[in-house]
Amino acid sequence: LAVSAHAQSSVTLYGNVDVAGVYSKTKVAGSSESTTAIESSGLTESFFGLKGQEDLGGGLKAVFKLESFIDVDTGSAGTSNFWGKNAYVGVAGDFGTVALGNQESLFKTVGNAYNPFGVSPALSTTVNLFTGLTGLGGSWQNTVGYVSPNLSGLTVSAQHSAKEGGRGDAANYNGGATAVAANYGAGPLAVSAVYGDVRSTTAVASEERQRAFLLGGSYDFGVVKAFAQYGQDKFDSKVDGDFKAKFFQLGAVVPVSQAGSVHASYGQTKVEDVKARQFSLAYNHSLSKRTGVYAGLTYIKDEGLLNDDVDSVKATVVAVGLRHAF
Amino acid sequence: LAVSAHAQSSVTLYGNVDVAGVYSKTKVAGSSESTTAIESSGLTESFFGLKGQEDLGGGLKAVFKLESFIDVDTGSAGTSNFWGKNAYVGVAGDFGTVALGNQESLFKTVGNAYNPFGVSPALSTTVNLFTGLTGLGGSWQNTVGYVSPNLSGLTVSAQHSAKEGGRGDAANYNGGATAVAANYGAGPLAVSAVYGDVRSTTAVASEERQRAFLLGGSYDFGVVKAFAQYGQDKFDSKVDGDFKAKFFQLGAVVPVSQAGSVHASYGQTKVEDVKARQFSLAYNHSLSKRTGVYAGLTYIKDEGLLNDDVDSVKATVVAVGLRHAF
Amino acid sequence: LAVSAHAQSSVTLYGNVDVAGVYSKTKVAGSSESTTAIESSGLTESFFGLKGQEDLGGGLKAVFKLESFIDVDTGSAGTSNFWGKNAYVGVAGDFGTVALGNQESLFKTVGNAYNPFGVSPALSTTVNLFTGLTGLGGSWQNTVGYVSPNLSGLTVSAQHSAKEGGRGDAANYNGGATAVAANYGAGPLAVSAVYGDVRSTTAVASEERQRAFLLGGSYDFGVVKAFAQYGQDKFDSKVDGDFKAKFFQLGAVVPVSQAGSVHASYGQTKVEDVKARQFSLAYNHSLSKRTGVYAGLTYIKDEGLLNDDVDSVKATVVAVGLRHAF
Repeated sequence: LAVSAHAQSSVTLYGNVDVAGVYSKTKVAGSSESTTAIESSGLTESFFGLKGQEDLGGGLKAVFKLESFIDVDTGSAGTSNFWGKNAYVGVAGDFGTVALGNQESLFKTVGNAYNPFGVSPALSTTVNLFTGLTGLGGSWQNTVGYVSPNLSGLTVSAQHSAKEGGRGDAANYNGGATAVAANYGAGPLAVSAVYGDVRSTTAVASEERQRAFLLGGSYDFGVVKAFAQYGQDKFDSKVDGDFKAKFFQLGAVVPVSQAGSVHASYGQTKVEDVKARQFSLAYNHSLSKRTGVYAGLTYIKDEGLLNDDVDSVKATVVAVGLRHAF
Repeated sequence: LAVSAHAQSSVTLYGNVDVAGVYSKTKVAGSSESTTAIESSGLTESFFGLKGQEDLGGGLKAVFKLESFIDVDTGSAGTSNFWGKNAYVGVAGDFGTVALGNQESLFKTVGNAYNPFGVSPALSTTVNLFTGLTGLGGSWQNTVGYVSPNLSGLTVSAQHSAKEGGRGDAANYNGGATAVAANYGAGPLAVSAVYGDVRSTTAVASEERQRAFLLGGSYDFGVVKAFAQYGQDKFDSKVDGDFKAKFFQLGAVVPVSQAGSVHASYGQTKVEDVKARQFSLAYNHSLSKRTGVYAGLTYIKDEGLLNDDVDSVKATVVAVGLRHAF
Repeated sequence: LAVSAHAQSSVTLYGNVDVAGVYSKTKVAGSSESTTAIESSGLTESFFGLKGQEDLGGGLKAVFKLESFIDVDTGSAGTSNFWGKNAYVGVAGDFGTVALGNQESLFKTVGNAYNPFGVSPALSTTVNLFTGLTGLGGSWQNTVGYVSPNLSGLTVSAQHSAKEGGRGDAANYNGGATAVAANYGAGPLAVSAVYGDVRSTTAVASEERQRAFLLGGSYDFGVVKAFAQYGQDKFDSKVDGDFKAKFFQLGAVVPVSQAGSVHASYGQTKVEDVKARQFSLAYNHSLSKRTGVYAGLTYIKDEGLLNDDVDSVKATVVAVGLRHAF
């Protein structure tokens, strides 16, 4: 018999599994090291989820989503909470959607929408140089989220992560985070902007405060879809010095056949005169709507920004992988 | 295509997501603190589960249940084991049901059935003042459970949690726990009694032994459903002194419209002359059979019983939330 | 409504729950101890899983599997990673199947196929004396697996667990592991052989290197199905001394009625002149294709091999349990 849920219920069980063989060569202070590995989430995020909605009448709907990351290479449920990607319940109506719980941040949404490599931890310049680097682009706990209805292409969103017990002191800011975003789409054009004031997204007090924005745009010319992003992130610290990071990214996706596309992206982050730069190139081949193979290459040149390196780091990563959405 | 299970199989995937905005104000030794938070399980437990049954012929059935708590606010799977709510397999027949595994305790069942706020960690006086306080009302590991068939309204249940390696010594009792319960229902009337002898429910040796009972009754007058509970819990300790806690609770649910009801409960626990008291009031509004919103208020006055406080604590909690069963 | 997955999707949700009451008596250096316990996976592995496949056309299929162990007795998700049994994605075609991720090892497959007690942690002599003892028989992380098509009954398999960052030094071998296996089946006969060179299956460097093989065969005579296994495991250590373990197992399953069968197995492992021996006997009664009850007894006599015991250990275990696949 078929799996059944409660009467009147509708639960969707879905997910994505993406695993790649990854070769990486890293050069730190003139000395090289190379590794061959099997890694999860080579191009897309590996996870599984449960979601559903219920029509409540009068234009109202109840919605929920539970999503759990999977490190397919090791079988682990990842390093965040089990339902660390999403765990929320909400109501949707003419007024938009209000949701409560653990939710992917608006920085992640805007970060991914305008980079040809989305959330790929290896290949996405935006993840490596901006949203992942600064912790803005994960999921926010204890969050109230709002998404407006679509008004002639315009959508406005807001998120607030409660500070709860995370009270600051001389060495810490209060916990909590707030972000607002606007998205506009018209035919081949899409643009977004997000601004956030982020101390902590897990209800703890924080040494650091980030005030950041990220702008993104894409235009689909048919023969090529072009992407651009620009962001700034101002760090204030109660312990270390303050600084500002400036980021940009330019990208393109070129369909080369019915099933194949070439993806390219160049990104750079700069703090004062120190830069980190990444260039990624990949070929993505769909075997069906849900399944595909890909081969990608990325090159990172970091003058000492990432991972608190004082030394310059050069890294080359080659990934060949298989992804399957279910 | 639809999700399918093995041929001849029938698996139900279900759960509940409940999140509230919670304001709490706590006054300890004359000094006040307030917090605004997003919390999971404001009124009902957030969890997901898999369950199924199979007809074996001759009146026999195989049954199983796997249930996992969800802290929807943080996306965590809670602090207990992953399948910490329930994980068991059993057989049911004319003789009743026998199940083996991790199982919600009979104290939880009786505690919840006769309190208008069920298992709400914030609002249920029974959870805060009796079953949760004393650790009786969670789930029991390594447990054999038995539920009798319904005999003219009467059901008898028993649970035994094996002590396994939990051997006592001069400072510890053997692990293990045993409980028996009886439930009777006739039209608008329901009454239950549970008695337990509990050292530990996780197969470890324990400094403390509890011998406890809880009586509960409800009567549905139509315009109001009334609830009452009375319990005692005698603590013997190999390390600290012995004492006895006495608990009672009175509650009511008043339907005020087709979709709305008012819930009220007053509870008190007393150890010698020291008391902890809680009063809860809520409005619960169904948007459908599976979805609802609620607003509740609770007031706790603790003279020093809960959390080993020596000081008197006063706490006021206001919760406004959304729940959705799937 | 039915649970539904994405359009064109097909996800199967399945698993097995097996719990037993277990009595064990252990005698170490002349002193006896006995324990009564509720244990998970008495005869078969308790787990739940998600799997699916998609027809990609041209004889190609995408496949995935996610499987998570369950300790039904405690409700825990076990001690390995959450998807520690299996987590992989692959493609299958005329060339066979290639899969990437965390995968049950070929030693587990051959170990289980030719022992009448499969993977039972209590009753399987192969698990206790060879595959479980030496760590060969679990799941391998970061693994590329290959299974050939069936060529007139012959199947060839290979697995390689990447060493990734697990670089050796004076005290450690590189991480990583490789195994190859061949299986042949013809009517009532089945035989398998697996050879592996295993340092570590979790991408860490390892003090030990194992080079091991395991041969297995079974023949179904109708009135009895007979099993035999022989294996060797050569340990080289960078820290301790080297040694070789030699293992054999003989087993039988005798159908005694339409629903019932008697299982028996004798196994022995020897290192130099020190032996560990186990004899298991069980009655397995099917209540349906998916559900059954069993009663088993095992006797272990260990002269000091298992668990680094210096003393001789004798253990008797009796298990009575219920299993249900869903």
